[in-house]
Amino acid sequence: MPKRMKICINTGGGDAPGLNAVIEAVTMAAYNRQWEVYGIKSGYAGLLNTDEIIHLTPEKVDGIASVGGTILGSTNKGNPFKMPIANAAGEWEERDLSDKVMENFRRLRFDALVAVGGDGSLEIAHRFAEKGMPVVGVPKTIDNDMGGTVITFGFDTAVSIATEAIDRLHSTAKSHDRIMVVEVMGRDAGFIALNSGISGNADAIMIPEIPFDIEKVCDKVMDNELHGRKYGIVVVAEGAIPMGGNVITKGSGEVGRQHVVLGGMAEHVAREISKRTGKDSRSMVLGHLQRGGSPTTFDRLLALRFGAAAVRAIEQGKFDHMVGLHSPDIALVPLGEALGIHKRVQTDGDTVLTARDLGICFGD
Amino acid sequence: MPKRMKICINTGGGDAPGLNAVIEAVTMAAYNRQWEVYGIKSGYAGLLNTDEIIHLTPEKVDGIASVGGTILGSTNKGNPFKMPIANAAGEWEERDLSDKVMENFRRLRFDALVAVGGDGSLEIAHRFAEKGMPVVGVPKTIDNDMGGTVITFGFDTAVSIATEAIDRLHSTAKSHDRIMVVEVMGRDAGFIALNSGISGNADAIMIPEIPFDIEKVCDKVMDNELHGRKYGIVVVAEGAIPMGGNVITKGSGEVGRQHVVLGGMAEHVAREISKRTGKDSRSMVLGHLQRGGSPTTFDRLLALRFGAAAVRAIEQGKFDHMVGLHSPDIALVPLGEALGIHKRVQTDGDTVLTARDLGICFGD
Amino acid sequence: MPKRMKICINTGGGDAPGLNAVIEAVTMAAYNRQWEVYGIKSGYAGLLNTDEIIHLTPEKVDGIASVGGTILGSTNKGNPFKMPIANAAGEWEERDLSDKVMENFRRLRFDALVAVGGDGSLEIAHRFAEKGMPVVGVPKTIDNDMGGTVITFGFDTAVSIATEAIDRLHSTAKSHDRIMVVEVMGRDAGFIALNSGISGNADAIMIPEIPFDIEKVCDKVMDNELHGRKYGIVVVAEGAIPMGGNVITKGSGEVGRQHVVLGGMAEHVAREISKRTGKDSRSMVLGHLQRGGSPTTFDRLLALRFGAAAVRAIEQGKFDHMVGLHSPDIALVPLGEALGIHKRVQTDGDTVLTARDLGICFGD
Amino acid sequence: MPKRMKICINTGGGDAPGLNAVIEAVTMAAYNRQWEVYGIKSGYAGLLNTDEIIHLTPEKVDGIASVGGTILGSTNKGNPFKMPIANAAGEWEERDLSDKVMENFRRLRFDALVAVGGDGSLEIAHRFAEKGMPVVGVPKTIDNDMGGTVITFGFDTAVSIATEAIDRLHSTAKSHDRIMVVEVMGRDAGFIALNSGISGNADAIMIPEIPFDIEKVCDKVMDNELHGRKYGIVVVAEGAIPMGGNVITKGSGEVGRQHVVLGGMAEHVAREISKRTGKDSRSMVLGHLQRGGSPTTFDRLLALRFGAAAVRAIEQGKFDHMVGLHSPDIALVPLGEALGIHKRVQTDGDTVLTARDLGICFGD
Repeated sequence: MPKRMKICINTGGGDAPGLNAVIEAVTMAAYNRQWEVYGIKSGYAGLLNTDEIIHLTPEKVDGIASVGGTILGSTNKGNPFKMPIANAAGEWEERDLSDKVMENFRRLRFDALVAVGGDGSLEIAHRFAEKGMPVVGVPKTIDNDMGGTVITFGFDTAVSIATEAIDRLHSTAKSHDRIMVVEVMGRDAGFIALNSGISGNADAIMIPEIPFDIEKVCDKVMDNELHGRKYGIVVVAEGAIPMGGNVITKGSGEVGRQHVVLGGMAEHVAREISKRTGKDSRSMVLGHLQRGGSPTTFDRLLALRFGAAAVRAIEQGKFDHMVGLHSPDIALVPLGEALGIHKRVQTDGDTVLTARDLGICFGD
Repeated sequence: MPKRMKICINTGGGDAPGLNAVIEAVTMAAYNRQWEVYGIKSGYAGLLNTDEIIHLTPEKVDGIASVGGTILGSTNKGNPFKMPIANAAGEWEERDLSDKVMENFRRLRFDALVAVGGDGSLEIAHRFAEKGMPVVGVPKTIDNDMGGTVITFGFDTAVSIATEAIDRLHSTAKSHDRIMVVEVMGRDAGFIALNSGISGNADAIMIPEIPFDIEKVCDKVMDNELHGRKYGIVVVAEGAIPMGGNVITKGSGEVGRQHVVLGGMAEHVAREISKRTGKDSRSMVLGHLQRGGSPTTFDRLLALRFGAAAVRAIEQGKFDHMVGLHSPDIALVPLGEALGIHKRVQTDGDTVLTARDLGICFGD
Repeated sequence: MPKRMKICINTGGGDAPGLNAVIEAVTMAAYNRQWEVYGIKSGYAGLLNTDEIIHLTPEKVDGIASVGGTILGSTNKGNPFKMPIANAAGEWEERDLSDKVMENFRRLRFDALVAVGGDGSLEIAHRFAEKGMPVVGVPKTIDNDMGGTVITFGFDTAVSIATEAIDRLHSTAKSHDRIMVVEVMGRDAGFIALNSGISGNADAIMIPEIPFDIEKVCDKVMDNELHGRKYGIVVVAEGAIPMGGNVITKGSGEVGRQHVVLGGMAEHVAREISKRTGKDSRSMVLGHLQRGGSPTTFDRLLALRFGAAAVRAIEQGKFDHMVGLHSPDIALVPLGEALGIHKRVQTDGDTVLTARDLGICFGD
Repeated sequence: MPKRMKICINTGGGDAPGLNAVIEAVTMAAYNRQWEVYGIKSGYAGLLNTDEIIHLTPEKVDGIASVGGTILGSTNKGNPFKMPIANAAGEWEERDLSDKVMENFRRLRFDALVAVGGDGSLEIAHRFAEKGMPVVGVPKTIDNDMGGTVITFGFDTAVSIATEAIDRLHSTAKSHDRIMVVEVMGRDAGFIALNSGISGNADAIMIPEIPFDIEKVCDKVMDNELHGRKYGIVVVAEGAIPMGGNVITKGSGEVGRQHVVLGGMAEHVAREISKRTGKDSRSMVLGHLQRGGSPTTFDRLLALRFGAAAVRAIEQGKFDHMVGLHSPDIALVPLGEALGIHKRVQTDGDTVLTARDLGICFGD
């Protein structure tokens, strides 16, 4: 009688629409192979404290693909390679508990782990793989900035929510002859701003990959004014960078970057436009709205495909790899390779060209 | 041969989903009576400057009921009873141009005006009615705080958008064990906060009608913690009032009220919850998202009914009245009477009772 | 020590968006009074077979208000006053099991029942009330044809879904110069057709309350053609009645009504329009789409208010009543009174007038 | 002074969400190059009758990307290579008017044509290219069955609408212990059925690429019954093919295929399931709902990218090519090459594998 496989899955990092779809697909693909499958709550913590492990069954995952959040509970409770632990003196110090995790993994007789997470979580997965754990990764990033895959789940939902918001702001901006500056996610990569700005018919888009000159944006605003378009929509990635860059952000991001602006980038840009053009300008930060809630159909399907592909990878013994979309197929990419890539908007790619063709200003 | 009626319509004040539906219904109801109908842009300004008047036809209004904004362009350009005018010395002074408006109205041979607007705009309409202009009002308020009608168009859309946003915030709050404080519109009346908070499964709701004690809200948060619900959703109306009320708002509202808080009410509440409970707390201001974009089906229908009823009121010579929903029918209410009423959430009404029955905390 | 109340709830008849919201509100309002609350599956069957009773807790109802269907499982398994039972000879005969239900209700020491259902289910509830059961009713009808309440939950969702569908059909009808005939629910009352037809910018609406002459509808279609509108949208209630009425429906409804048409009313109308005008005409039946899935914000709130009001009615000992919306409040209406009313579209009411003002043809 | 380019665009075949976005992008990309751009109504007919040509300007296309349908009016009025023309005897005969089209194209001094259409329209475009017309194609197919591109606009919208419908049907099927059979588009290719079936958590999916045995589907239904899932969702492509295939379709498709079933495939399947399992089974045809209305954000962006890329292709003189998505970029593919490919679902591709992993039955 063949051995019955026993696998587990964890989800790390921030919320992303589609996490539950990955869990559903992993559970069902394992169940239909007559494997057992377990969910580890709170990232890797469940491998330190077995209270955090739940048995996943078809009943538990039925229909969860369309539900936001993750049934495996909240974010990573820390990196097992440097876990914050209180010492005898009551001070926090970082300790490497990775051997403890390895030991528990083996003691529980797991045959494989599906690790769903971003750069950080997959980096940890890769290190465990190097220690001998059979791991398959599933990439997760709202910002779409991970390598090894054309796109990840959650991104289409984030772009759709941002576009819907921009659609709504059009009518109110127009009714009040106003400039609306919308800040969307994207600290290092401008994909959400770029895609939602184009789909949402924005007048200007500012992304980290193209430092902007606020004067150029004001030129566009006043040019529109002369053509009778007395309102405007400006989409700003949270990590947009002013040319020169001696301004400093604060508020929506951490301090310590080269540009720190009181109250976030959108507020800064709105204030500058108002000052330089005299137009009534307002800002709005979409923030958490972009990563919560029900995934789009596109993201549901992609996440289900990722989950099922991860189980097939386990079946084939392809560990230390992650699944990735190589349209129209799913491919397996070595984790070590994918983690080295930090995807950014191609400034001469056809999406940026499309924006320019449509007359959208990048401030350059 | 009977006289062919010639009517006009203006829209005043801020954007509200459903304005175009009113315009469509007025136009079609007039057209089907073989009347002529004109749209006056920019509130009453069009009666001072006839460049701002457009002929409305079935083609121009076809399908606009589902589109946000108003085809009659932006907000009121001022109150004709005290219009800001530059004098010879280049200084702005307020002048009463209402006679000029009356004169133009007659010169253009208009038989009636449909005035769509909030308290302010309908007050002006009422004063014109007293000067002899045949006016019918259509009430417009996102906040649902006008008298003479059970509800107005735009409110259902605003509540729906707020509820959808709260839905999305649930999954991200849950995934990060976080308290999310959402600020919705409602300076004087808490209807949007109340309705979206109940529909969105909030833990606490703060409205202007019920001064709140932040400690009570924190009690609720920590009570949930003990019951295993480690996250929370708090919905705050922009005009929510802390008990005692020596705090002062600023940011999302004008200064000068009895409570002024730096950065808006949501940020204040999130900061306090975080300080008092130690829970990670974040704030989000929905702002302009609530008043823009396509109306819900409910608002489309209500706005179309209002528009058609306004034309029937003209037909019946019922001037100086406004249309209002007296479920399930549309009634005509004297403007003078309706304008005196400032609707507020009934603190012992069944909606507040429902919230309390569901265990939602008002901070009282 | 006061007695701890023990109540139960059942849901009867077809699916309606908002059922779960009623269950959530009843559960929470009971829980917050420290009462116990139980759900009876499959209508009244659970009072014959106690395997079908579940304990309702805050955990079980958390967040279900936004989910379609009912956690209390499927439809009534029959009327306890004439329950189909197999006799010794293996034949089905109807037996009155109402005393058995009464006995179990008392044996289980329930203090009250919240019965959620349509005409049929509430009729049963009323008969049990007459036998001495403390019952409070919550009206449920997609069609909005029940008395005692301005509106019921589920109706706004059904109208919204129908309107969205009609919106989508516009663009495809227009792109192909086609007449699209859409059949919506409404066997006896035309509320869904009327409201969605107006909101969806239909050219003609046919409802049971206004018998239609197909020639009048064709007049409208060809009149539009002359005005350059070469496509059309016709909304038909499933129970629409042709004038004269010797046509006979079949397909989407039961046979035996005075009008029976092969393939349903929409197909009949499309065929006639095509034959009489030569225009390409297609039909579409929305069917089950209208009653499934997530409720609108409006319906969530209304259903929550109904559920909470039912518990307050129990608290006040107001039995043999149902809750009803008397805008803006919830009222309690004697069941016997409400059940006698079969609400129909008022053919001279302002909604029909609005449709006529907009130029919509009823075929009369 | 360089010559000012003058280009035109037509849209052929059925409605697809995204057509207006292509028109917007072509117009804006041309405008921003200071080219002139014209829209040809009714396919190629506008090149036979210049009344059908309109000047496209930024004002005319502002915001149309999010609107369904096409501002260039309805479908092709025929193939210019065999145009139906009434002869002297009043009989229709097909005539080759392609030289007339070429002549007018030159006479109007157009420098290039952007032809947006499906297989048929692009075949015509290719033939004109061979006659010397500078043509760039933009592929359009709801079914996603065209070669030369990973995906086309309109498909994501169709899949999303179908998934939303399936979501709604779940709750009503569950509430009534019913099997719901949904028919979606896809005469030759099963992409919509496959993707919406997976995203919508279907129990079985039938597509043209995998002939189905109805007994296998019934096995799945009854297997679910034993596991306590007493309802089911079956998604059927309109062109699904029963094994053996002596059944014959009619109703939703043309007659003359190898399988013709009275009333369409969904009705046939529902009837068979009902007969063979005794389960209450209903059918629903989504039909026209899938191709109308506002495009998803994904489709808006893709269509805008296609339109802009078509203008860049003209700039580079790359005629007799079509634009295509080669993720993540847009490529230019020779029309002759792309037209030869008829894309079908890969029965061993990862999407089908995902479905099987999830336990979805294909009836094979």
